[in-house]
Amino acid sequence: MEPGDAARLGPGRAARALPPRLLLLPLLPLLLGRGLRAAASASTGAAADDSSAMEELATEKEAEESHRQDSVSLLTFILLLTLTILTIWLFKHRRVRFLHETGLAMIYGLIVGVILRYGTPATSGHDKSLSCTQEDRAFSTLLVNVSGKFFEYTLKGEISPGKINSVEQNDMLRKVTFDPEVFFNILLPPIIFHAGYSLKKRHFFRNLGSILAYAFLGTAVSCFIIGNLMYGVVKLMKIVGQLSDKFYYTDCLFFGAIISATDPVTVLAIFNELHADVDLYALLFGESVLNDAVAIVLSSSIVAYQPAGLNTHAFDAAAFFKSVGIFLGIFSGSFTMGAVTGVPSSLTGAHVTKFTKLHCFPLLETALFFLMSWSTFLLAEACGFTGVVAVLFCGITQAHYTYNNLSVESRSRTKQLFEVLHFLAENFIFSYMGLALFTFQKHVFSPVFIIGAFVAIFLGRAAHIYPLSFFLNLGRRHKIGWNFQHMMMFSGLRGAMAFALAIRDTASYARQMMFTTTLLIVFFTVWVIGGGTTPMLSWLNIRVGVEEPSEEDQNEHRWQYFRVGVDPDQDPPPNNDSFQVLQGDGPDSARGNRTKQESAWLFRLWYSFDHNYLKPILTHSGPPLTTTLPAWCGLLARCLTSPQVYDNQEPLREEDSDFILTEGDLTLTYGGDSTVTANGSSGSHTASTSLEGSRRTKSSSEEVLDRALGMGDQPVSSRGTRLVFPLEDNA
Amino acid sequence: MEPGDAARLGPGRAARALPPRLLLLPLLPLLLGRGLRAAASASTGAAADDSSAMEELATEKEAEESHRQDSVSLLTFILLLTLTILTIWLFKHRRVRFLHETGLAMIYGLIVGVILRYGTPATSGHDKSLSCTQEDRAFSTLLVNVSGKFFEYTLKGEISPGKINSVEQNDMLRKVTFDPEVFFNILLPPIIFHAGYSLKKRHFFRNLGSILAYAFLGTAVSCFIIGNLMYGVVKLMKIVGQLSDKFYYTDCLFFGAIISATDPVTVLAIFNELHADVDLYALLFGESVLNDAVAIVLSSSIVAYQPAGLNTHAFDAAAFFKSVGIFLGIFSGSFTMGAVTGVPSSLTGAHVTKFTKLHCFPLLETALFFLMSWSTFLLAEACGFTGVVAVLFCGITQAHYTYNNLSVESRSRTKQLFEVLHFLAENFIFSYMGLALFTFQKHVFSPVFIIGAFVAIFLGRAAHIYPLSFFLNLGRRHKIGWNFQHMMMFSGLRGAMAFALAIRDTASYARQMMFTTTLLIVFFTVWVIGGGTTPMLSWLNIRVGVEEPSEEDQNEHRWQYFRVGVDPDQDPPPNNDSFQVLQGDGPDSARGNRTKQESAWLFRLWYSFDHNYLKPILTHSGPPLTTTLPAWCGLLARCLTSPQVYDNQEPLREEDSDFILTEGDLTLTYGGDSTVTANGSSGSHTASTSLEGSRRTKSSSEEVLDRALGMGDQPVSSRGTRLVFPLEDNA
Repeated sequence: MEPGDAARLGPGRAARALPPRLLLLPLLPLLLGRGLRAAASASTGAAADDSSAMEELATEKEAEESHRQDSVSLLTFILLLTLTILTIWLFKHRRVRFLHETGLAMIYGLIVGVILRYGTPATSGHDKSLSCTQEDRAFSTLLVNVSGKFFEYTLKGEISPGKINSVEQNDMLRKVTFDPEVFFNILLPPIIFHAGYSLKKRHFFRNLGSILAYAFLGTAVSCFIIGNLMYGVVKLMKIVGQLSDKFYYTDCLFFGAIISATDPVTVLAIFNELHADVDLYALLFGESVLNDAVAIVLSSSIVAYQPAGLNTHAFDAAAFFKSVGIFLGIFSGSFTMGAVTGVPSSLTGAHVTKFTKLHCFPLLETALFFLMSWSTFLLAEACGFTGVVAVLFCGITQAHYTYNNLSVESRSRTKQLFEVLHFLAENFIFSYMGLALFTFQKHVFSPVFIIGAFVAIFLGRAAHIYPLSFFLNLGRRHKIGWNFQHMMMFSGLRGAMAFALAIRDTASYARQMMFTTTLLIVFFTVWVIGGGTTPMLSWLNIRVGVEEPSEEDQNEHRWQYFRVGVDPDQDPPPNNDSFQVLQGDGPDSARGNRTKQESAWLFRLWYSFDHNYLKPILTHSGPPLTTTLPAWCGLLARCLTSPQVYDNQEPLREEDSDFILTEGDLTLTYGGDSTVTANGSSGSHTASTSLEGSRRTKSSSEEVLDRALGMGDQPVSSRGTRLVFPLEDNA
Repeated sequence: MEPGDAARLGPGRAARALPPRLLLLPLLPLLLGRGLRAAASASTGAAADDSSAMEELATEKEAEESHRQDSVSLLTFILLLTLTILTIWLFKHRRVRFLHETGLAMIYGLIVGVILRYGTPATSGHDKSLSCTQEDRAFSTLLVNVSGKFFEYTLKGEISPGKINSVEQNDMLRKVTFDPEVFFNILLPPIIFHAGYSLKKRHFFRNLGSILAYAFLGTAVSCFIIGNLMYGVVKLMKIVGQLSDKFYYTDCLFFGAIISATDPVTVLAIFNELHADVDLYALLFGESVLNDAVAIVLSSSIVAYQPAGLNTHAFDAAAFFKSVGIFLGIFSGSFTMGAVTGVPSSLTGAHVTKFTKLHCFPLLETALFFLMSWSTFLLAEACGFTGVVAVLFCGITQAHYTYNNLSVESRSRTKQLFEVLHFLAENFIFSYMGLALFTFQKHVFSPVFIIGAFVAIFLGRAAHIYPLSFFLNLGRRHKIGWNFQHMMMFSGLRGAMAFALAIRDTASYARQMMFTTTLLIVFFTVWVIGGGTTPMLSWLNIRVGVEEPSEEDQNEHRWQYFRVGVDPDQDPPPNNDSFQVLQGDGPDSARGNRTKQESAWLFRLWYSFDHNYLKPILTHSGPPLTTTLPAWCGLLARCLTSPQVYDNQEPLREEDSDFILTEGDLTLTYGGDSTVTANGSSGSHTASTSLEGSRRTKSSSEEVLDRALGMGDQPVSSRGTRLVFPLEDNA
C-alpha cells in the first residue's frame, strides 16, 4: 500500500491538499491579505538593523501586493455578477428563455477563466518558502524560532512534491480559488434555507408522499445504479489502460451520491414563467430540495464506510451497517435539529410577538429571525450534524409556524433578505463553476469516464423516475401521467449541490476525475436541458399558461419575481375580489378526490396534532388549547394560549394554507396566506401594471383554483381577504 | 535599541502578534475549523500503518473538537445578539430611555465575558506545537518536510517567548477573539455605508459648512490637544514610575487620533425619539459621520510618520510633511474613489433604469446596488486607499443620485437590507466590546493614564467645540446657541470606530494601554452620557417633541424605526394632505434668512452644476442637457438625456430634496422625496396605527416645516404628493 492511500481512504474531510493558499474568506479575502500583512510586518519586527529595515519594507510591499490581489480577485467576481445581472435584465426584457441566469453566469465565468488562465503572466509566487525537516508527523500548529523570536504557523495542507514549484506559478489563479468549505458554510446555507422557506405551498403538502418517495428512495436508487454503472466503466478503463491511478468501488458510490443531487433551477424558473402545471412543479421542486439533503448525508456516510482490517475494499457487513447507521443518525439528527430549533424561534416569535408588540419593530423581528435561522446551522454543526440539512428543515418549520407570527412588514423583509442572499449565492456558485473549468489546476479529463457518467446519470434517472412513479401510481388516485414522468426524467439537472460536494475533496486522482466530470455534467445539463425546457413542455403536452388554474396566476402583479426565477413560491396576493362564496363541485372534481385520497391517516393524524396543539402554542391561530387539551391541563393550556386565539375562536382563524384536506373532521381554510402578499407588492405594483398589464388574467383563476381544491357544498364564511370554511371542529 | 522597537515604530499594520490563533472569519469560524480539520486529516495521510491510523483518529477528533468550539463560540455571539434584541424590544415597549441597545449589548457582553473568563476551565490547547529553528527571518509561508511529504504552513503571528505556554491556556477565550481586521473589512463597512446612505437630508446640506469645519478642523484640533495632554500624562507617569515600557510622542498623537472619532449613536437615537432640534441633530450626525473618516486617515498618517535616521522620535519636517501628504492623498483618494464609483453605479442605475425597465426587477436592482457599493470598498482597497472612507462617500453619492433612479420597491429593499446589516454589525461590535474587557488577555490598566485620558478627551472636546463654534458663528446668520454648543460638547461619545482603531494594533505596551483606556472610555460615555441625554436636553432647554417643526414629525407612522434608533434619516412620508398652497412668510423667517446666508457662492456654484449637468446625466430629473449644454454639444446632450427628462420638463421634476436654497435663480423643490416613503411604511402602517395613534400630530407640522424653509410668496404648483416651486429656471 502506498503512503498516499490513507488519505484517499480516510474519513470524508481528508486529504484536501491543493490549491495551497486557499482563500479562507469568500466574502473578504482581504482579511487574509491583511492578516498576512500584519503577520509579515510582525515577523520583521524582530531585528532593527538596516538590512532588516530593507527586508521589512520588502515584506510590507509583498503583503500589500497580496492584499491588493485579493481585492482584485474579489472585484473580478463582483464584476462578473454585475455583468450577469445586467445581462439577465436584458434577457428578461427581451423575454429570452433559452438561457437562464445561472447558465449565463457560467458562461461569463468561463470567459473570465480563459482570460485568467491564458491572459495573465505566470508570475512566480511572492511567498518566500523555506524547507524545514520534521520527524514523524505534521501538526496543525507550528512554532518556529527565528533568531530568538517565536512565530506561529498554521497548517494549510499537503503539497505533492512534484508540484511545489508549479503551485507557485500563477498568483492570480490561486487568488480566485476558494476553500471548498466556503460553499458549505457560506454559500449553500442561504440557498437551502431559502428553498425550505419558500416550500410553504399547498401543492407541496398535497404531494408530500410522492415527493418523499422520490427524494429518499429515488436518490438511493439513483446513487446505487450510477455507482455500479460507474464501477463497470472504471473496470473497463482499467482494461483499456485509461486509468492511471486507483479508483475504488466506494469512490464510484460516492460519485453516485454526489451526482444524484438534482437542482432543476433552470426548469423551475421556466415553469414559473410559463405557469406550468403546479403539481408537476411541486413534485420537481420538492424532490430537488429534499434530495440535496439526502445526497449530502448519503455521500458522507459512504465516505464513512471503512471496512476493518487489511482487506479495505471488500464488502464488510459491520462497516456497511455502520454507514447505514451514520446515514440515519446524521439525517434524523439534522432533521430534528432543524425542526426543533425552528420551534424556539417561532416560540419566541409567537410568545414574544403573540403577547407583546415585537411586530411594531420589523427591524428587530427581521434581525431576530435571521439570527435564529443562523444559529440552527451553527447548533447542528456544533453537535456534529449537517448544518445545511438542519437549515433546510429549519426553513420549512419557520415557514410553517414563525412566518405566521411575523408582522406583514417583517414577512416581506425576511423574504426579501433571503431572496437577495439566495440570488447572490446562487449566481456566485455558478459563475465560480465557469471559472473553475479553466482556473482549477488539477483537472483529470477522461473521455471514457465522462461518457460513461452521462450514460449512467441518464439510466440512473430513468431507474429512479419510472419504476417509482409506477409504484406511486398504484397508490395515487390522480396518477402521475407519462408526460409528467418524462418531464421529471428530463429535468434531472445537476447544479450547486453536486458541484459543492465534488469540490469538497479533490485530493486523490479519482476525486479529481469526478470533479471534472461533475463540472461538465452541470454545464451540459444547465445549458442544454435549461434551453430545451420550453420545447420539451410543448412536446409533452404539459399544460402551461393561463389556461391552467395555478395559484401563480393570481400573482400577476408579482410577476417580476417569477421572471427572475428566484422566488418560485410566492404566496397568493391579497384578493380584493375574494368576497365570493364558492360553490358547486368544479369540473376538476377528480383532483379533489385525489387530494382526499392522498391525505392518508398518517397525515390526518399529524395535521390534527399540528392544528390542535402545535398551532395554538406556536402561532396565533388554531383553537384555544383549553378546548383541545384534557381538563386537568387547564392551567397550562391557559398559559400557553395566546389571548388572540380566544378572540379569533369564532370563526377559526387559520393562518397558513399548507393544509391537508380531510374527510370533514377538520377546519378547512383557503387563502389564509393572503395577508402575506402585502409583501412588497404594493411598491412594485405601479411598475408592473404598465409592463404586465397585458398579461393579466385576474378574472376567473381564483374561482377555478378554489374549485380545484374540491370544496363542494360546504358552508363558507368569508372574512376580508380570508376565506374560512368552519366545519365541525372543536370536538 | 531593543529588538522589539521596530515593531512599535513600524508601519501602521505592524506588530499585531496576539491572540495567536485568531479567527479569521467573523461570520464563519467554522471555515477555519473545517480547514484545519481537513488539513489535519491530510497531514495524517502520510503514513498508513497502525500507529498513524490511531494518530489520524486522534487528529480527526481534535479537529472536530476545534470545529465544534468554533460553532459554539459563534453561537455565543448569536445568542448574545438575540438576548440584546429581546431586551431592546422590552425597553422600547416600556419606553425605557436611559439605556440604549448598544449599552445593553455591552452589558450582556460583559456578563458573558466574565462567565467565559472565570467559568470555563483553563484547558490546555489541543494544538500540538513543535519548535523548528530557522536562521534569519520569518516567512509568510513555510514548507515543511515530514517523512518525504511536504506541508504548507501559513504565518499567523509572533508570540512572545514568555507567553508560549500561557497562550494555549484557554481555548474558549481564544475562540471568541476575532482578528481585528474583521472590524475593518466586515463590520465597519455596512455601518459606515448606512451612515452615508442615510445622510441625504436637507438639514445636513444646510449646515454643510459648519459640519465640515467640525469634522476636519475639529478632529485635528482634538487629536493634537489630546495627544499633547497625554504626552504630559505619560511624562508624569514616567516621573512617578508608573510606566514600565516605552511610550512615545507619536503614540500619544495616535491615541489622540483614534479617540477623536465620535459616535453619538445613543444621543442620536434619543434625539430621534424625542424629536429634538433638527439642526442640532444634523450637526451632530454629520460631524460624527465625517470625523470617523478623518480619524481613520489621520491615525494611519500618524503611524506613517517615520523620521529618517537614528533620532527616531525627534521632530522631522520631511517626515511631517510626508505624513500630511499621506493624509491628503489617502483622504482625497478615498473620497474620489467613493464619489466616482458612485457615478458608474448611478449611471448604470440611471442609464439602465432610465432607458430601460430594470426597475421591474427589484431583486436585480437591489443585488446590483449591493454589489456596486461593495465593489467601491474593494476598489479602494485594491488601489491602496481606505475602503471604509470610500464606502462612506459612495453611500452619500448613492443616496444623492442612484437612490432616485431606483424603483420604489428597490429603495425600500436597499434601505432595509443595509438597515439590517448595520443593526447587526453595530450590536455585534458593542457586545464584542463588552466581551473583550474580560476575554482580551493583554489589558494594561493604568489608573493615571485612564484618568488623564478622561480629562484630556473632555478638554479636547471643549477646545474643539467652543472656539470653532465661535468662529462659525461669525459667519452664520443663525448662530449656534450656547445650549447647542453645550449639547455638542456633551455628546462626544466614543464608539465603534475608536474601538476598531484601538484593537487593530495591540502589540506594544503603549498600544495595549491605549486599547484598555479606549474600552473604558467607550463604556463610560455610552452608559453615562447615553443615560444622561434626556435630562441634559431638558436642562439645556433644547426644544424637543412635537412643538418643534421637524421633518421627523411627519414620520409618525414610521415611528417604530426611530425608536429602534438605527434609521435616523428617514425621508418624509407621502403627504396625502399636501395639496395645499403655502403662502406667507412664517414666523420663522430668521431661519429662512440663515438658510440663504449659508448657501454661499461655492455651494450655489456646485448646486447649479449638479442641477444642470450631473442630475440630468445621472438621474431622471433636472432640465434636459440640450437646454443647459452649449449648442455644439447637441448630439452628446441628446444621447445623455433621458427621454423622461423631456416628459418631465415642465414643470421640472426635482427628484431629491437635499437642495440648497438660492436667491431665486434656481428651481426650488420640496418634498421630492415623498415618493420614497412608500418605503416599507405601507406594511407597517396597520401595526403602528394602533400603537402610535395617540402620538400623531399630523396637523400642522408640515405647514410649519414649509414655512421654515423660508419660501415665501412664490408661486407654487403642486403635483400629487410632490410640491414643486418653479422659479425662473432654464436660463
